[in-house]
Amino acid sequence: MNGSSLALRQRSLGDPSAEYPLFPPLTRGCPRTSTDEIAYPLDVVYDYAKADRALFDQEPGPDLARWSPLLPPLAVPTLGEGGTPLVEFGDVHIKDESRNPTWSHKDRLNRVAVSAAVAAGAPGVVVASSGNHGASAAAYAARAGLPAIVLSSADSPPAVQTFARAYGAKVVSVPVAARWPLLREVVDRLGYHPVSNQTVTHTGHPFGPEGYKTIAYELFLQLGRTVPAAVLVPTGYAELLYGVWKGFTELRLLGLAERTPRMFSCESAAGGPHARALATGAPAAIVELGPTEAYSVAGTVGGHRGVLAVRDSGGEAVLVTDDELRRAQRDLAGQGLWQELSGAAGLAGYRRLRREFDGPVVCVATSSGFKDMGVGGERHPMIENPTLDDLVN
Amino acid sequence: MNGSSLALRQRSLGDPSAEYPLFPPLTRGCPRTSTDEIAYPLDVVYDYAKADRALFDQEPGPDLARWSPLLPPLAVPTLGEGGTPLVEFGDVHIKDESRNPTWSHKDRLNRVAVSAAVAAGAPGVVVASSGNHGASAAAYAARAGLPAIVLSSADSPPAVQTFARAYGAKVVSVPVAARWPLLREVVDRLGYHPVSNQTVTHTGHPFGPEGYKTIAYELFLQLGRTVPAAVLVPTGYAELLYGVWKGFTELRLLGLAERTPRMFSCESAAGGPHARALATGAPAAIVELGPTEAYSVAGTVGGHRGVLAVRDSGGEAVLVTDDELRRAQRDLAGQGLWQELSGAAGLAGYRRLRREFDGPVVCVATSSGFKDMGVGGERHPMIENPTLDDLVN
Repeated sequence: MNGSSLALRQRSLGDPSAEYPLFPPLTRGCPRTSTDEIAYPLDVVYDYAKADRALFDQEPGPDLARWSPLLPPLAVPTLGEGGTPLVEFGDVHIKDESRNPTWSHKDRLNRVAVSAAVAAGAPGVVVASSGNHGASAAAYAARAGLPAIVLSSADSPPAVQTFARAYGAKVVSVPVAARWPLLREVVDRLGYHPVSNQTVTHTGHPFGPEGYKTIAYELFLQLGRTVPAAVLVPTGYAELLYGVWKGFTELRLLGLAERTPRMFSCESAAGGPHARALATGAPAAIVELGPTEAYSVAGTVGGHRGVLAVRDSGGEAVLVTDDELRRAQRDLAGQGLWQELSGAAGLAGYRRLRREFDGPVVCVATSSGFKDMGVGGERHPMIENPTLDDLVN
Repeated sequence: MNGSSLALRQRSLGDPSAEYPLFPPLTRGCPRTSTDEIAYPLDVVYDYAKADRALFDQEPGPDLARWSPLLPPLAVPTLGEGGTPLVEFGDVHIKDESRNPTWSHKDRLNRVAVSAAVAAGAPGVVVASSGNHGASAAAYAARAGLPAIVLSSADSPPAVQTFARAYGAKVVSVPVAARWPLLREVVDRLGYHPVSNQTVTHTGHPFGPEGYKTIAYELFLQLGRTVPAAVLVPTGYAELLYGVWKGFTELRLLGLAERTPRMFSCESAAGGPHARALATGAPAAIVELGPTEAYSVAGTVGGHRGVLAVRDSGGEAVLVTDDELRRAQRDLAGQGLWQELSGAAGLAGYRRLRREFDGPVVCVATSSGFKDMGVGGERHPMIENPTLDDLVN
């Protein structure tokens, strides 16, 4: 659409001197810098000198192919991902990612990661996910004409189970402990391309955050060629957080923006591996997980990407409780935006921070309320002989 | 945003010489031309001579305010409705309306209709709906700061019941026979503004189809300033069908397009009031309804708008069975687009037609698969000791 990919190679986030060809994508982290305790993700390096700044004169509409020079090669046809609206909400802007093809931000990642599967000639795609990621990967695999296997868990919300299966993937609920060994077996024995993590701390797909970069490009244009002062991001594995951060660093590198925003990871207080790593100075951390319904921002395993994004941007790790998430979710819905509980973490984090910023604040909202625990589980009996009193009280 | 409204007045679709001021919106149809058997809807007339064609040089992005000169006054802030992608699917284009703020086309109508409530000074909004319309009206009422009452039915899908309640509206499940009398009581006694139908044949809100017009504007731009040869529209009350048709007639009127598309109403074969009216030459019809799961395109009550759109465009009424809808739904999901069963009616209708067209064909897809009956109702047991064989067979 707008020129071919300027992606050059992969580079370790553990040591920038450790470089690798662009293909095959190193889906098990950097082999040179990773240790038994910490796995380092790869990043994608571009030939920025050849990037035409006119790319940023276009509208921030759907289809990531509009950014193709600054993405790995896109081999899967678009489902119209990206180009999501920025909606006013009090003193912040909500970037409503529930407006993607499968109604979450994950579609940006999967357009790119499933394209890597196609480009690598893989016979299929495999993903371990009990939520949005699995369904989105299934959708893009379907779009690519590839079979997909989704390793899910029995405790994902019932509507989400239907969702993941709708795209024709093989979805199997397995015990949590069985997911990673199975994933590895599918990769090793069937040659399927993995689009979820396989390492001790999170590295995920090396191309994944590239899809999320486009959120930064869109925000820059939607705010009138301005960079926000702060971006608050619902954070599970921090691929989204890092991707948005990387996009802003590129805008500065390209001379389009003078500054970058502070990035805030917003994790469930029931876990919070990125908060832990940042507090202890570790490159990544693994934590225990308490009870929470915010299953998309509640993980035990963190990754180095999130640490880099928060630290290098001068941001902060924020932990939010389920009660704070519920309030943020309710208040967003009270303005017409029904987010998944986890999807409201950006706003909940902003409120917990109670900070003034010298510029626009963006809270990323990641996903539709339809994906929550408990949706469809309530029962509301019919009123047999309703009167006006039943409607106003 | 792009200038103030050029809306002049209301005009009867039963007799164009019957004209009325723009406000109050005549939510009970045309008082002069309606009879005990047939209610005639109102249409909105604009001062087209003053319309700046440069309006159509902009990008077809979100926020209906970009079309404000050709809409009634917009008093409710945007939720980023409209600007939905056009996705390639074999030899047709899918206009994916599941990408709106509440994940259906209804948001276009409700931005406009709830704005009318605000402009009219109403203390609240009331709607009878067991599906997308009720939730969307609740979302825009919330956005406007108005209370909303949704008269729903106990047989709406469980997830949709949660959905409608999420926005803080008073949602009450009442017997079908009680809905209209109650709606009228809420309007008459509380002064709430109705955004759903109150008449013997469907008239709905006079401003509603104006919101849907913007789909035609977007399609024209998305197809490279070309008008499609055919547009196939999931059809319940035909407000969407008529709105899209009206948009194309305006493009011709403004000298931007030379032709208009053929419009195809795609109704459930279990009902089909518009197919009946067109077959019998009646201005509108009421039919019996058989069993179907396609609750959004299965009605007993038709309206005159749908008859006009199909007849004046040289189109046709198409009836589709649940099996045909399921096939279309499955095939769309097989390309990454999970639509509500009713939302697949445009594609199902196209396949039933088996017709060649001399230009692009657009199937409007109205809503997310999350809204279907049965979503979340399946149970998929966990495999305790999964092996590779469980994943590939």
